[in-house]
Amino acid sequence: MHGYAGNRADHLKRLARVEGQVRGISAMIERDDYCIDVLTQISAATKALQSVALRLLDDHLAGCVVDAARAGGPASDAKVREASEAIARLVRS
Amino acid sequence: MHGYAGNRADHLKRLARVEGQVRGISAMIERDDYCIDVLTQISAATKALQSVALRLLDDHLAGCVVDAARAGGPASDAKVREASEAIARLVRS
Amino acid sequence: MHGYAGNRADHLKRLARVEGQVRGISAMIERDDYCIDVLTQISAATKALQSVALRLLDDHLAGCVVDAARAGGPASDAKVREASEAIARLVRS
Amino acid sequence: MHGYAGNRADHLKRLARVEGQVRGISAMIERDDYCIDVLTQISAATKALQSVALRLLDDHLAGCVVDAARAGGPASDAKVREASEAIARLVRS
Repeated sequence: MHGYAGNRADHLKRLARVEGQVRGISAMIERDDYCIDVLTQISAATKALQSVALRLLDDHLAGCVVDAARAGGPASDAKVREASEAIARLVRS
Repeated sequence: MHGYAGNRADHLKRLARVEGQVRGISAMIERDDYCIDVLTQISAATKALQSVALRLLDDHLAGCVVDAARAGGPASDAKVREASEAIARLVRS
Repeated sequence: MHGYAGNRADHLKRLARVEGQVRGISAMIERDDYCIDVLTQISAATKALQSVALRLLDDHLAGCVVDAARAGGPASDAKVREASEAIARLVRS
Repeated sequence: MHGYAGNRADHLKRLARVEGQVRGISAMIERDDYCIDVLTQISAATKALQSVALRLLDDHLAGCVVDAARAGGPASDAKVREASEAIARLVRS
């Protein structure tokens, strides 16, 4: 069981909404909707996806990283390094 | 017909792939996959979504904005302002 | 003379402010200020820098890109491609 | 003493370089350099600033957050929440 298990239903609901947004963007392009309106929806979907990532990351820090810190040893350092790398990927994406 | 019409099939193919990525992320959470692996996939989907936005924006500049610039008048200024605002939303999302 | 010439004084004032923010962040680190407070200031400086970029880009679209579109020919396409590449760098940074 | 103390000299060197980059961008604008070249330098400075933020954050997780997790109690939860909020500001900036 990972850190996000307690919020699984919420994460899945948010992801289902993002999936619907992406499908909606495809429908806009099929209907030849105005470019700027399509871009506005892509910005919204991107933000919604990042918001799921930030929530998962919070669960991960509060769960796996805190547990590893308490257990101590090299596994603790490895968890922090791994989390930092995931944060860097999010900031750069 | 908007600036992106010539690339419609390509945009739709990319969006279908993003939709599949988002569905895949939901499946990872349902299987209780490791948080960091889920985050890596979210970063990839976010980048793919931004890449669609950048391609649509390029079509929009090359099509609608260039056409408006040639037509001239206040509509030209309005198109540039509108494009700048869409770019700002992308940079901030 | 480039598109941003009319707003040069404003851009320079904003950049001088960013320079001051960066110097302030160094001072915080020298004083051993709390990490989170340093990070908050870095986020603010990053946003201020992006805001200068978005203003310069707006000047560039309204000036150089619109002029090239009116002149027409291959130079027009080249300007749009170049602007799209600069936007992609901003979105990814 | 905060988590970043051990890397203070490195952070300060990187920030001095960012400060030089920002000053260089101002000089480009004073010389009326080409907009796109100015934007390229702003993207580089933004990335350099984010890179300092990611290093400070790594120090903070490995130091303050791990220490708080080991000490336990409500202070541990508060540190994680605070770190998550700082990460959200970075991702959104």
